[in-house]
Amino acid sequence: MEKNDIDSLYLGSFSPEKFINQGHTSALASFSLGLENIPTARVESACSSGAAAFKEAVFSVSSGKHDIVLVIGAEKMTDVSTTRATEILSTAGDMIHEGSCGVTFPGLFAMMANSYKKEYDLGEEDLRNILSSIAVKNHESGSKNEKAHLNHKITVEGANNSRLVASPLRLADCSPISDGAASVVICPSEMAQDVHDEPVNLEGFGHFTDLLPVHLRENLYRSEATQKAADEAFRVSDITRENLDFLEVHDCFTINEIIALESLGIFEEGKSAEYILNEDFRNFRVNSSGGLKSKGHPIGATGVGQIVECVSQMRGEVENSRQVEDPEYGLTHNMGGAAVSCFVNIFSRGF
Amino acid sequence: MEKNDIDSLYLGSFSPEKFINQGHTSALASFSLGLENIPTARVESACSSGAAAFKEAVFSVSSGKHDIVLVIGAEKMTDVSTTRATEILSTAGDMIHEGSCGVTFPGLFAMMANSYKKEYDLGEEDLRNILSSIAVKNHESGSKNEKAHLNHKITVEGANNSRLVASPLRLADCSPISDGAASVVICPSEMAQDVHDEPVNLEGFGHFTDLLPVHLRENLYRSEATQKAADEAFRVSDITRENLDFLEVHDCFTINEIIALESLGIFEEGKSAEYILNEDFRNFRVNSSGGLKSKGHPIGATGVGQIVECVSQMRGEVENSRQVEDPEYGLTHNMGGAAVSCFVNIFSRGF
Repeated sequence: MEKNDIDSLYLGSFSPEKFINQGHTSALASFSLGLENIPTARVESACSSGAAAFKEAVFSVSSGKHDIVLVIGAEKMTDVSTTRATEILSTAGDMIHEGSCGVTFPGLFAMMANSYKKEYDLGEEDLRNILSSIAVKNHESGSKNEKAHLNHKITVEGANNSRLVASPLRLADCSPISDGAASVVICPSEMAQDVHDEPVNLEGFGHFTDLLPVHLRENLYRSEATQKAADEAFRVSDITRENLDFLEVHDCFTINEIIALESLGIFEEGKSAEYILNEDFRNFRVNSSGGLKSKGHPIGATGVGQIVECVSQMRGEVENSRQVEDPEYGLTHNMGGAAVSCFVNIFSRGF
Repeated sequence: MEKNDIDSLYLGSFSPEKFINQGHTSALASFSLGLENIPTARVESACSSGAAAFKEAVFSVSSGKHDIVLVIGAEKMTDVSTTRATEILSTAGDMIHEGSCGVTFPGLFAMMANSYKKEYDLGEEDLRNILSSIAVKNHESGSKNEKAHLNHKITVEGANNSRLVASPLRLADCSPISDGAASVVICPSEMAQDVHDEPVNLEGFGHFTDLLPVHLRENLYRSEATQKAADEAFRVSDITRENLDFLEVHDCFTINEIIALESLGIFEEGKSAEYILNEDFRNFRVNSSGGLKSKGHPIGATGVGQIVECVSQMRGEVENSRQVEDPEYGLTHNMGGAAVSCFVNIFSRGF
């Protein structure tokens, strides 16, 4: 493919304004890539900005306006201090009623973890073991991904003893602050074979927005927007949960992998522990990339990076040791804010 | 129409991150409006964020996914000082090579004015008279618009003697820093008569992105992206420039009304003065709303506000004294950065 085959560019990025003092970043992207005289737009939806850009790109193709569209997700987060990055990230929440009281995202997801613990009557140690098991699993996968940010293995004991960040969440429960970018090229299905020998199909997608203020939410132990997005994606694609060979879900904090998997309808509500504490869980291939936890969470890049992992798995292009065997169907789940903007995509191998 | 008729929400906003310390503003918008369980996204394209949101909303409808979509443009700019607002606005330009040297938007458009003056061999006084005539005309229209921010009339003498901002631009050449919002509802053409008795049709649109760094541009006295966007919009809509009854163009600085009108192909290149200094120009109805100059330029709102003016003119809903007689066709032109992201829409009366 040549540069001038690209009809349009979509950039997903959360807060380049604050992280690098640059707005109008879609025009910066097209300029930097030498893509002249095409339309460009940046789409922002907090931590789901990547999935949001992908969705708008899909609309631009399915509307018939464009054929070949480049989708980029990117965030440059390490030019500022960790404290400042946490402050910037907090603007993805309701700043009027909640951020103004000092809550940041570790605090919001800690409340979700406590809410889950209470709803399903878990002991402190039970919850800790579940959370640490997820961290260990995702680091195990990430250790096999040469592009992962934290590509080292960890142990349950190490995770249990890592520094407390916002009770009950510890450092091992939190995704890191990362720089990163990812991109995919999309085109109409009927052109796919001309563009690539091994195309991957988007079978369906769903996207819903929950209430921004967490304090108005009916509960914090599941994500209604994720559930609705998943129901929509499965309905449109006519693919069942049982068909899925792997999933990339939004584990910004370990608790959210549980909430995501239950809200997606993969595990029964409150029953994740049964599966997660079982060794077989690893074979189900949730977050084969290492997830946000180990691969990293460069905000705008995450939703697009999940799709890259999905496509790479289908094509057998990932490191051998984390390759899912002959995958046909995969799902990506990207979330913005504390379970506010939720996107689900379902892909199938098109070759 | 009821709230639950709305299938999706698009928000165009430039830098709420910096102006009001709030990201994820599309979710804030849906929450504030009581629109639950719909997908939302924010689209950013500097000062053309409003037109960019409108375009993505159009794609979402023309893709067949959504029927009735709400498009909002908004910016809250006055919570910060004027100096800080100017700094924030400068991030719509290339911050690496140009902003880092201290240039802000008055400076960039001053260079465009000087480039225009040189290319067409204008004397200082000639240019000043042209620029002031535009300011006077737009304030005249704005004085008839009760929603205009600066809704007072000004004189050529007053404009000529207003404070120098960035030579040759004076205060009267600059759009103000405003708070504002605008919204439109769109739906498929075939549904239009069911949704509103007096629907307005989008006949065509064009959108191109020029090089972000101004210093790499071939010239500064016209906007290539505007020209390409206009050519595309006229081609798609099969409407000619002669059909147009009125236009809303992006007069962030008076010089840009000239550059826009020439790049859109309304006036011949370098020949704007002939028309602008002629009294008849006012009858041509450029910026009947008062334009950015007088109505105000709340960044993300501007592109949507132009469409609101267009629809209001078609429906005969504007103040009598600025009503265009029986208009059938109108054009909107929204620009992001210094002639970087350019959007053109052409509308027709659908009743």
